Amino acid sequence: MLDYPNFSFDVKARDKKSGARIGELKTPHGTIKTPNYIFCGTKATVKNLSPCQLKEAQTDIILSNTYHLMLQPGANLIESIGGLHKFMNWDKPMLTDSGGFQVFSLGEGTMANEIKGKNNKSNYNKNLISITEEGCVFKSYFDGRKIKLTPEYSMEIQRKLGADLLMQFDECTPYHVDKDYTARSMEMSIRWGDRCLTEFARHDNGAQALYGIVQGGVYSDLRKFSAEYTKDRPFFGTAIGGCLGGSDEEMHGVVASTVPYIHADRPVHFLGIGRIKDVFRFVRLGVDTFDCVIPTRLARHGSAYIKGEPKETINLKNSRYRDDQTPLDENIDIPASQKFSKAYIHHLLKANELLATQILAQHNVATINMLMRELREAIKTSTLDELEKVWLRK
Amino acid sequence: MLDYPNFSFDVKARDKKSGARIGELKTPHGTIKTPNYIFCGTKATVKNLSPCQLKEAQTDIILSNTYHLMLQPGANLIESIGGLHKFMNWDKPMLTDSGGFQVFSLGEGTMANEIKGKNNKSNYNKNLISITEEGCVFKSYFDGRKIKLTPEYSMEIQRKLGADLLMQFDECTPYHVDKDYTARSMEMSIRWGDRCLTEFARHDNGAQALYGIVQGGVYSDLRKFSAEYTKDRPFFGTAIGGCLGGSDEEMHGVVASTVPYIHADRPVHFLGIGRIKDVFRFVRLGVDTFDCVIPTRLARHGSAYIKGEPKETINLKNSRYRDDQTPLDENIDIPASQKFSKAYIHHLLKANELLATQILAQHNVATINMLMRELREAIKTSTLDELEKVWLRK
Repeated sequence: MLDYPNFSFDVKARDKKSGARIGELKTPHGTIKTPNYIFCGTKATVKNLSPCQLKEAQTDIILSNTYHLMLQPGANLIESIGGLHKFMNWDKPMLTDSGGFQVFSLGEGTMANEIKGKNNKSNYNKNLISITEEGCVFKSYFDGRKIKLTPEYSMEIQRKLGADLLMQFDECTPYHVDKDYTARSMEMSIRWGDRCLTEFARHDNGAQALYGIVQGGVYSDLRKFSAEYTKDRPFFGTAIGGCLGGSDEEMHGVVASTVPYIHADRPVHFLGIGRIKDVFRFVRLGVDTFDCVIPTRLARHGSAYIKGEPKETINLKNSRYRDDQTPLDENIDIPASQKFSKAYIHHLLKANELLATQILAQHNVATINMLMRELREAIKTSTLDELEKVWLRK
Repeated sequence: MLDYPNFSFDVKARDKKSGARIGELKTPHGTIKTPNYIFCGTKATVKNLSPCQLKEAQTDIILSNTYHLMLQPGANLIESIGGLHKFMNWDKPMLTDSGGFQVFSLGEGTMANEIKGKNNKSNYNKNLISITEEGCVFKSYFDGRKIKLTPEYSMEIQRKLGADLLMQFDECTPYHVDKDYTARSMEMSIRWGDRCLTEFARHDNGAQALYGIVQGGVYSDLRKFSAEYTKDRPFFGTAIGGCLGGSDEEMHGVVASTVPYIHADRPVHFLGIGRIKDVFRFVRLGVDTFDCVIPTRLARHGSAYIKGEPKETINLKNSRYRDDQTPLDENIDIPASQKFSKAYIHHLLKANELLATQILAQHNVATINMLMRELREAIKTSTLDELEKVWLRK
């Protein structure tokens, strides 16, 4: 039986006004406080940030993508070098996803729109060759070869990668499919979840812990069914995945109809969602960890998170910053936030200089980490509303 | 009269077997030991390296290019923000060139080939509209507008940028022009040098120091004439510029025929030259500082300097590094050199991840700085030959 002896999750305090909670999630690579934010190191690197820079920005945990790493450099190579932690020189907690999200989105970006209901065209599954009970077959973006990904194979790859927190393999359904398809898909994800648990248990040596994923699209009865399934099985944690609807309200409804039925004592991860307003919204429903590419992606587009900015970010490419001598945020104790004027970053962006990305990425990661620290404090003192007002000037 | 009260250059020891010397070059932003290497921060940034990372790599001095900065963001903007040091957050010594090299090369890379005699085609001066006694007119690569650059204007821009060490404005002649053109050009550079001195003196407040540049192409009589001119004038230092010939031997001949005629007590800078073998060759002729884009450019192409590698570098893109678990150089005390396997850097390069550039650039800068420290020690003990054998396994 799976009992995850080297892992634990303890709720330490609860908000008096919402479902928000603060907790401690223990892994073999250290304990993180929750709520927390898991930064995306898709191809075994958070884009243009070294592990040192991530730590300077007070990062506790990152993730890598099974799908990208299985194609290049391959799980066997990473295993032979001692696993992902050693490979990328990151000694703190780490998560890998199952590869499912990317397989079902292939073509990149499509699925991200799908889960937010922004895309009704069927350009979904462009390189996906087949989905059967056994698993799915897809064409590698890297070299065109056909690859079969099954629940067992996803577990094998994630075992070789060696992250602390693993995800079950699931089908991630898009927005445009109907309830019937969503229901059948969710049922298959449940069977895949069981196969993942069996395969995981076969090799379990205490070094890793497995999350189940709640699917069911925008249908509350399906979400309830899927949530209860994960609760009944010996997963360490619960992740919320799949299509979440076309608006903030619909997304809120989906999560609100899921959370009451999941295991109350397990950590809850929200897959792929992480704007500041999302974080405020969903910690109140009891979400413990978030992940999203947005902090580093925004950096590559010239945007910086600013505490107190209603739109969350400012874009340094804007000519208004041409001679702005103020730093990004003098309250964040790293050179990226304190030592460079907006005018300098504006210049770097205009000159296409990579240092701009580096400065903005580190600042954005540091800002989100500051947000999470302040959130945890606000949950303890039941002052989330007040904190949200400061951050989003609501 | 120019006396540079806040600057000094003192020769501290000499090699018993060559013209190599160690010295101390004092500027208002600190004193550097020589021989030293000046890393290129063309557009007010050493590509993808922050000032922190440069300091971690034990960098003493960097340069920026007048030509690029006058076009974007402009010298007035940088002056209004407090100068280049403050703009880019670099508080140690800094040099700016005169803009001449880029004006006369325009089209980038052309002149670099020209000074090494690698290009006989006349694609020289593509965007250069005119060269007259007054100065030159060229078309901005940035926005197409016509710009006139004169000795006085170069001084004005460099004064506004605020670096410690400045260069006179000169015409940088290519390889394919004949001796007559080279002679007339050198004579004009001499007159431009005098105009630079006059303009510099008019605004001198002790914060900056001016170098004269020796021109004269590959012709030893012209080099002698130009060298004697710089010696006679109140420049703080001497730079060697212009066409240096088509082979290592010719380049050596040009410098050897120049050095005896320059001012022996002034620092000698070699413009734009900086392979490891060049450094070994030319410190022996008495060169005190080098600059070259090559350490960071090589990084962007996937190459790392390795001490003891006869070809100076290895290319991490090569498939032989696919599963190489060794770090770049465990004797260099920064994570970039010690903490990432060659296999990881190979993976990052294959995945087009920016972190590869950052790691390799910092490693290359740190390696060159280690070379310069070891060179200074070897000059003190007259063991340059032995050190060269270790570095280039000769």
